[in-house]
Amino acid sequence: MNTDIVLRVRSARPIIHSITNYVTANDCANILLACGASPIMSDDPDEASDIASLASAVVLNLGTLSDRKLIAMQTAGKAANELCRPVVLDPVGAGSSRHRTSACKTLINSIRFSVIRGNVSEIRALSGELSPSGGVDAAEADLGDHDLESHIVLAKRFAVSTHAVAVLSGQTDIVTDGARVCLVHNGHKMMSTVTGTGCQLSSLIAAYIAAADGDTFEAASAAVAAMGLAGELAAKRLMPEDGSGTYRAYIIDAIYNMTPEALAKGARYEIRP
Amino acid sequence: MNTDIVLRVRSARPIIHSITNYVTANDCANILLACGASPIMSDDPDEASDIASLASAVVLNLGTLSDRKLIAMQTAGKAANELCRPVVLDPVGAGSSRHRTSACKTLINSIRFSVIRGNVSEIRALSGELSPSGGVDAAEADLGDHDLESHIVLAKRFAVSTHAVAVLSGQTDIVTDGARVCLVHNGHKMMSTVTGTGCQLSSLIAAYIAAADGDTFEAASAAVAAMGLAGELAAKRLMPEDGSGTYRAYIIDAIYNMTPEALAKGARYEIRP
Amino acid sequence: MNTDIVLRVRSARPIIHSITNYVTANDCANILLACGASPIMSDDPDEASDIASLASAVVLNLGTLSDRKLIAMQTAGKAANELCRPVVLDPVGAGSSRHRTSACKTLINSIRFSVIRGNVSEIRALSGELSPSGGVDAAEADLGDHDLESHIVLAKRFAVSTHAVAVLSGQTDIVTDGARVCLVHNGHKMMSTVTGTGCQLSSLIAAYIAAADGDTFEAASAAVAAMGLAGELAAKRLMPEDGSGTYRAYIIDAIYNMTPEALAKGARYEIRP
Repeated sequence: MNTDIVLRVRSARPIIHSITNYVTANDCANILLACGASPIMSDDPDEASDIASLASAVVLNLGTLSDRKLIAMQTAGKAANELCRPVVLDPVGAGSSRHRTSACKTLINSIRFSVIRGNVSEIRALSGELSPSGGVDAAEADLGDHDLESHIVLAKRFAVSTHAVAVLSGQTDIVTDGARVCLVHNGHKMMSTVTGTGCQLSSLIAAYIAAADGDTFEAASAAVAAMGLAGELAAKRLMPEDGSGTYRAYIIDAIYNMTPEALAKGARYEIRP
Repeated sequence: MNTDIVLRVRSARPIIHSITNYVTANDCANILLACGASPIMSDDPDEASDIASLASAVVLNLGTLSDRKLIAMQTAGKAANELCRPVVLDPVGAGSSRHRTSACKTLINSIRFSVIRGNVSEIRALSGELSPSGGVDAAEADLGDHDLESHIVLAKRFAVSTHAVAVLSGQTDIVTDGARVCLVHNGHKMMSTVTGTGCQLSSLIAAYIAAADGDTFEAASAAVAAMGLAGELAAKRLMPEDGSGTYRAYIIDAIYNMTPEALAKGARYEIRP
Repeated sequence: MNTDIVLRVRSARPIIHSITNYVTANDCANILLACGASPIMSDDPDEASDIASLASAVVLNLGTLSDRKLIAMQTAGKAANELCRPVVLDPVGAGSSRHRTSACKTLINSIRFSVIRGNVSEIRALSGELSPSGGVDAAEADLGDHDLESHIVLAKRFAVSTHAVAVLSGQTDIVTDGARVCLVHNGHKMMSTVTGTGCQLSSLIAAYIAAADGDTFEAASAAVAAMGLAGELAAKRLMPEDGSGTYRAYIIDAIYNMTPEALAKGARYEIRP
């Protein structure tokens, strides 16, 4: 894993245009600043093209969806596509409503994504497979590793059909471009008690691939490992009275203090042929 | 007070559909995760019915109101009513503008609420009584306990007229179904220096009554005590240089670490016949 | 510098009507509560006039702009103007898109602002000068002090043309009413790693000038010094594993604990004739 990407983000300071939900927008902006990137959070259709053109990457996050936001996403995504800048999709809650699933599919059909990151429920919903319905978090049955092999098949197939690197978040995170597979074992179970750690990962991926300016699969894998490691490092700092409130700040702290050395030492992953 | 509800939320993991304001949406999602519930934050009218149908409870919060959000609220509330799932109303800022007061009344007239939680100014505005005008926080004159008896009368009357459990937040919190009254003495004055502690309480109430699956008055009383106790426990941890920023995280930490035993030990309340 | 303003805000508890972005709305509300003011966050055109009339000051922040928000801003700004209440403008991201720059100019042309606060890129864009394009943060070239004298000229000219006190944020902050100039040397470089410290400063300015009820230039200067000092005090508390996540809470803590004495002791500024 090329962990120098941690420094490349800090020197390149890529501008990341984020069209995202209002629940975790603050965390997404702060994780981008913490890793060294420069966020522009704007969801106005009237400026989506201008802003996307300024940015090194665009991230589209479907949380708190609206028709207006969807138009801005299409405009920004197309503008980025024309300039050959990477676009990341986080299909938050795909499968939770017909409208949302349909909106995700519309985006996938009209924009070329470099990375699509979601949990098993979301990716399954977008693959047209049935999923045990649940919230915007992965359904209980999706969280374990007992189905890892079938999840890898799902992710690879999804990557092939969307021509994107698929990142499937779970106990073991799966990153695949359809051929190569990277299984990332980093992470901590407390991460699911803080809203937006998935959204933050999608933002981090956008920053990493913008700065990598090359192998999207490699950069996305590094971002997944960095976020998971941040969750581990944050958990180690917790004192008995601390909980998910303090933990939230510590995750951002860990990304702020991340170094190539720490990532190289802490990353736990395997490459599947 | 049945404090086992703390564990029931963690085992039931109820999905709570939240249509709420963008100022405190993050805190509301995080308090729900901290208590063991599973938030879905969505305010899109096009999916309000689908999402509400997935949820064990719906919470409608009037902060940062918009016409679009109001439509989503009506759709979600009616869907939940049809499925006999509890709906909680937080009439943020009722009385601050004619438009907002009118929107609250529209909701109360078209949806059957299980719980309506507000401060004295808000509940008074919705009861048609005149209130010293002020912001979305309780007006100064409303905060003290010198008017406790008249506030109890106000709350009981409001509960009877709305067929909801009324939760009137103040120095002493009043919970009443119109007949029974629970006065909760928990809480800390620093809670008013953090935005959204009221919104968070409304979310917590939704989680508790969803998991209680029974006595709404009992479950709402427990949620009010738990939130107030969290404010007390968080305040105890503060060091001299800490302030409302650190306190905000500690409140969520305290809900994260809450146990039935701690709640039983810390809850300070009296039942009025 | 009249540092008693710190106490005046706490005793006056001015209501501040904030029409702001959803990325940092929570931080803005919390900084207002921390300094002793009372925030009302509402962006609904249907109540903008009512809410603005309740408030001692109005702050308009252009982040996450929308047409709807722009209408609310115009309505609230005009209502405040009619009542002779101060209005603060934070032209977030002016220069990043034609639409946004145009929206800022529309507001400046239709509303009388007491204070306009932005970074060099933003103020330059609104002055019609060309700026190296960048994100909503100050472009790299704008951050240093090598251009301080030209920035003072820019700020003074902007103040004269808008009849507002101009606050130009940078390594050295410039406050000017076109005649008097206050250069504030407080601040810490880590402040740029937390989203919304600029937005928070604009909110703090609104609270200070609302409570000052007099010299806007003086009160704005005190707010700028207080925010910068809070950034310094927060940085001093950081332990090795802390980063921008913890820092964010500590900034709010420092405003919560600010005293006239601490501000008098810590403020570093010079008045230019």
